Amino acid sequence: MSEKPYDATLAWTEGLQFVGKTSQSGIALVLDGSSEHGGADSGIRPQEALLMSLAGCTGMDVISILKKKRQRVTGFWVNAHGTRAEEYPRRFTRIELEYVVRGWGISKEAVERAIELSQTKYCPVTANLNAEVVYTYRIEEETVPEER
Amino acid sequence: MSEKPYDATLAWTEGLQFVGKTSQSGIALVLDGSSEHGGADSGIRPQEALLMSLAGCTGMDVISILKKKRQRVTGFWVNAHGTRAEEYPRRFTRIELEYVVRGWGISKEAVERAIELSQTKYCPVTANLNAEVVYTYRIEEETVPEER
Repeated sequence: MSEKPYDATLAWTEGLQFVGKTSQSGIALVLDGSSEHGGADSGIRPQEALLMSLAGCTGMDVISILKKKRQRVTGFWVNAHGTRAEEYPRRFTRIELEYVVRGWGISKEAVERAIELSQTKYCPVTANLNAEVVYTYRIEEETVPEER
Repeated sequence: MSEKPYDATLAWTEGLQFVGKTSQSGIALVLDGSSEHGGADSGIRPQEALLMSLAGCTGMDVISILKKKRQRVTGFWVNAHGTRAEEYPRRFTRIELEYVVRGWGISKEAVERAIELSQTKYCPVTANLNAEVVYTYRIEEETVPEER
């Protein structure tokens, strides 16, 4: 396979601040630590990036599947909540995901199936995590705003 | 412990684009998929965010330790290279990290020890990964530029 490699290059600037660049998207990102730990709070923290990675990965799967199933989605959110171990290295022991789907007549079965497919088959980040990943979902029916 | 929770909230915009916000740093981030997979390449990809997370986490550890050991570091980089499985969910099976330390009389032992401490004790992202993480390092001696 001659696909482009997955590379990231981080350059240290000062304190705990790094500027990262990736090979696939070419996007640059500022990472930093908290001020309690010698950082300047100027960028995303590494463990936050991990939650973003997981939520983004499964969110992209789920919205793709719901669109393929012709669900009339008007809004979609993924909330991730990480619980860290008390002991160092303080990894996440448990990550809770909440999927919120807003739309017209959204099928409960379609949402459940989409999440299940993502979590068991498609999402590489879930498969890369050494943590318990649990999820819930909520469907919000879209409504026509009242005239004023 | 009353520490602020580690939360991330991703809101879908269109296509595969999400805007993520985190609770600790409050930083917002755009995530997107590749154009081959229905995205618009407008943001960082989830698996890239995972590499950034790992490289940032261990990078912050290593630079902190080197500073504590009074090493005269003038430049520092962490390069991460991920190898994905051929089969879905195409998780990273192996991630290679390369640490590059530039400075004046940098101690090989200090660099080795700093990396070892990060990889075995401090970095939560390494501890959260279900992948083989291997590393190398390189020390570059700083030089005074020649006069022109």
